[in-house]
Amino acid sequence: MEFAIGCSLAYTVNSPSALVFNLEAASLPRQIIRSESLTAHPPLQPESFTVPETGNRMLRYVVGRGSFRLDYRADVTLDPLMEDPAAVGEFQAQDLPMTTLPHLYASRYCQSDKLSRFATRQFGGEQPGYQRVAAICNWIYGNVDYISGASDAMTSAFDTVTQRAGVCRDFAHLGIALCRAMGIPARYVSAYAWRLSPPDFHAVFEAYLDGPAGGAWYLFDPTRMTGADGLVRIGIGRDAADVAFCSIYGDAGSGAPQVWIDGPDTTIPVTTAAVSLQALE
Amino acid sequence: MEFAIGCSLAYTVNSPSALVFNLEAASLPRQIIRSESLTAHPPLQPESFTVPETGNRMLRYVVGRGSFRLDYRADVTLDPLMEDPAAVGEFQAQDLPMTTLPHLYASRYCQSDKLSRFATRQFGGEQPGYQRVAAICNWIYGNVDYISGASDAMTSAFDTVTQRAGVCRDFAHLGIALCRAMGIPARYVSAYAWRLSPPDFHAVFEAYLDGPAGGAWYLFDPTRMTGADGLVRIGIGRDAADVAFCSIYGDAGSGAPQVWIDGPDTTIPVTTAAVSLQALE
Amino acid sequence: MEFAIGCSLAYTVNSPSALVFNLEAASLPRQIIRSESLTAHPPLQPESFTVPETGNRMLRYVVGRGSFRLDYRADVTLDPLMEDPAAVGEFQAQDLPMTTLPHLYASRYCQSDKLSRFATRQFGGEQPGYQRVAAICNWIYGNVDYISGASDAMTSAFDTVTQRAGVCRDFAHLGIALCRAMGIPARYVSAYAWRLSPPDFHAVFEAYLDGPAGGAWYLFDPTRMTGADGLVRIGIGRDAADVAFCSIYGDAGSGAPQVWIDGPDTTIPVTTAAVSLQALE
Amino acid sequence: MEFAIGCSLAYTVNSPSALVFNLEAASLPRQIIRSESLTAHPPLQPESFTVPETGNRMLRYVVGRGSFRLDYRADVTLDPLMEDPAAVGEFQAQDLPMTTLPHLYASRYCQSDKLSRFATRQFGGEQPGYQRVAAICNWIYGNVDYISGASDAMTSAFDTVTQRAGVCRDFAHLGIALCRAMGIPARYVSAYAWRLSPPDFHAVFEAYLDGPAGGAWYLFDPTRMTGADGLVRIGIGRDAADVAFCSIYGDAGSGAPQVWIDGPDTTIPVTTAAVSLQALE
Repeated sequence: MEFAIGCSLAYTVNSPSALVFNLEAASLPRQIIRSESLTAHPPLQPESFTVPETGNRMLRYVVGRGSFRLDYRADVTLDPLMEDPAAVGEFQAQDLPMTTLPHLYASRYCQSDKLSRFATRQFGGEQPGYQRVAAICNWIYGNVDYISGASDAMTSAFDTVTQRAGVCRDFAHLGIALCRAMGIPARYVSAYAWRLSPPDFHAVFEAYLDGPAGGAWYLFDPTRMTGADGLVRIGIGRDAADVAFCSIYGDAGSGAPQVWIDGPDTTIPVTTAAVSLQALE
Repeated sequence: MEFAIGCSLAYTVNSPSALVFNLEAASLPRQIIRSESLTAHPPLQPESFTVPETGNRMLRYVVGRGSFRLDYRADVTLDPLMEDPAAVGEFQAQDLPMTTLPHLYASRYCQSDKLSRFATRQFGGEQPGYQRVAAICNWIYGNVDYISGASDAMTSAFDTVTQRAGVCRDFAHLGIALCRAMGIPARYVSAYAWRLSPPDFHAVFEAYLDGPAGGAWYLFDPTRMTGADGLVRIGIGRDAADVAFCSIYGDAGSGAPQVWIDGPDTTIPVTTAAVSLQALE
Repeated sequence: MEFAIGCSLAYTVNSPSALVFNLEAASLPRQIIRSESLTAHPPLQPESFTVPETGNRMLRYVVGRGSFRLDYRADVTLDPLMEDPAAVGEFQAQDLPMTTLPHLYASRYCQSDKLSRFATRQFGGEQPGYQRVAAICNWIYGNVDYISGASDAMTSAFDTVTQRAGVCRDFAHLGIALCRAMGIPARYVSAYAWRLSPPDFHAVFEAYLDGPAGGAWYLFDPTRMTGADGLVRIGIGRDAADVAFCSIYGDAGSGAPQVWIDGPDTTIPVTTAAVSLQALE
Repeated sequence: MEFAIGCSLAYTVNSPSALVFNLEAASLPRQIIRSESLTAHPPLQPESFTVPETGNRMLRYVVGRGSFRLDYRADVTLDPLMEDPAAVGEFQAQDLPMTTLPHLYASRYCQSDKLSRFATRQFGGEQPGYQRVAAICNWIYGNVDYISGASDAMTSAFDTVTQRAGVCRDFAHLGIALCRAMGIPARYVSAYAWRLSPPDFHAVFEAYLDGPAGGAWYLFDPTRMTGADGLVRIGIGRDAADVAFCSIYGDAGSGAPQVWIDGPDTTIPVTTAAVSLQALE
């Protein structure tokens, strides 16, 4: 499927600052960037850097006092792996690739170490694999209210599991923390999300599971706001601390971001397949 | 029912200290102290004080360097109000006595303000009154593991609801927080508890409900370790911060407390009645 | 000194609710209410209740769907005890009145149990008494930024001591927690505050100290926004949980409160005396 | 300098488990492993894996029910970079290598996002560079008590900055969090530490600074228990979550680890140089 994505971000810079962005679509075998453009006003040149272990694309602008705006647009083709959820199982710790182990560790917003008893009691009896992660997502959807303003930048999964309100970021953090507490590697994904209303940057998560063709990171959106097949990935990380769309080092204020995504006009139903952007063999 | 209770507490006092105790049985219309004795070694005289609004009996000893031991024993007759749980309802906020309102407020270990969404989702559909509080206790019993050493003096209901392990104090704090979050006044009770094994000071809680003869504080033990009809009350408070059996002001260390209670020898089953120590009319 | 105080509070009630207010000036020997009026629109009759142990005046209105407004005004004469700070010392735990001990306990927003090492290190070397509490206030003033919106209803002293930003409520909570951690009883005070800009309900705290005429609760405002001699007390409590100016039981929204206070027109400087509203002998 | 290091770790495995270790010395240009041996009892073969971005060496054993012991010993030569602290400055965010940026992000135990005001007030006026990090370490040493048992596996920098007690792990976490809050990349280091008494695994941290030969990670030990020139690095990570010496997936209990390190017999004084294990050019 083909998508046109983009964003426009505006800043008022009060003193010379470094702005670090992670907003470009990742370049992946199953996520092809057909074309893209990046325009800064004023027309500064960024330093760009792709993180080797994640593929996240970082941009650093050194900006002087005044206004700054960054416009990005890209045409992207997604060809996600679509599999039968029933065929996606779970790894034992002894069989997980060693590279996935750090995604079992507790992180700033995903304190899986504090949630192990809860997770075991609540999800220990579920069918291992995709079904168990789906059960975690269903529980989150059914027990946490989606309310803008109910959480802030310091809210973590430990808060959300009790306070039961938040936004997409909080839903993803809780999903990740509960997966890790069950021994399932999980990571945070920032994305452009087709049919998200209102349009904005979105946050979902991936769990590492044992699919028909081997281990793969499968996408989950516990908010149910989007289909996993309409997510154009920006970045991955342990949690939101790793993939801020903009980090300001200095003194600058931002307006509300403009974000958009256009996809197929047809009324394709949201997929029920297990979806992954894993590499094509 | 008649009970013989007592405790022996030993301290090593490293520099002159004030020790404040709350370990004597409360004197209540339904909890008659037939006799009691208090012996300090060395034989210091305490200052004693009964808190008007709670009836808690406080003792303050000013102790010099050296060993200090306090022995207490009492014979107590309990004549608790025993009622049909099905006849015990719940008050609307507009009908609660004004004196009970502070027992709706959040306290150090019972952060009901953080638990309102959780409580409403989990217990909002229960039958109001005794049944709802019993449902809260059942949920705690079924979802929190009783494990010595899993919690400490700083553990609060906000921790326990997520970490799912603790001791009687934590069970009581969680019960209180969930009741308050549902609009039911609740308070902490320290007690000598018949048939508690091993014997120790025990912690339970009371909820203010609408019984056949009007409003009363009903006893609940979410640990299920004791029957509500075998609890000799020491003190009540908003949470454990109010009813420490000993507060040390100065520099002193304590040994393990010796606590005991003897009751009827017969095999009286644990009551299923709604139990209260409210005043006789 | 004579003050005219008042407030106007407006609510949109979505379904029948109980609104409990604590906004009337307390009636104290040194705080004389010369006249006052309370008007509700619609003209409902409240249940009123004065809490015996605090003197807080509570009002409960049962309000139906629609608009509700409460107007209060009063003329008050303050005759505070004014003493030389240097003559105000500190009690040892063994000499504190037993009634003040609960004001040493940790509470919801004042986790003194977690702050004892910090307090001892920071303030252990200060001159005991009024000077030590003043040092605590100076430290708060010098280390915490007063920023509206930097905290919320769940922010506690444990957060503020690290995050270093908040409003009057947070300043008072931190002062209370640090006093208790040093063994000085402290409590929260809500007030109408002369020369507070912009006018609003204010929060300060009182510490129990050993004055020339014996033990008394002395007022402190670590925000330095007001003088202790221009505070018309509404309520006292362990922390903000005890003295909300309005608690809503039901479903109602509120507008911004209108609050005012008029005092002497003269340019009386802010006092440097130790100020207390303790009873006249 | 030459060191002989080693450890012996014993486990009781109750059901088949995966044990993942990170206890081998890292192989670095300035940390040469001259020889090493690893012996498991029973003699199981591990899967070994060196994390590309950190050089951490991981071992995974799949162990059946029964006893398991792992013995490791190595001879290591350290040739650390030793520089004049006064010549080690600080980078602006715009000049930091992009690879170091993740070490500015908040992590599980180092909530730098919550400490920014505190750090800025406390250390904003310090000389940038090595001196500022040394000031952070001095503050920690002077304000936090080293007390075994005062903290646990869930204790984080946010707790320690207020509660003021902990062990090496907590000291390192706080140092990291404060550096990040000041815009200085910092990471956690687990190590064998010469002259640590009693011998044990040790935790220190590294800060990324601008040395005479360019950017380098400099070692800091805020406990002052060891010299930075006697640290044999095991692993690096964002915080302790990344470098547990053993993670148990399954059901196994452990005895106290035996850890040792032998270094030069001479009475070499603890270095005052800025020390780094950065690559030799």
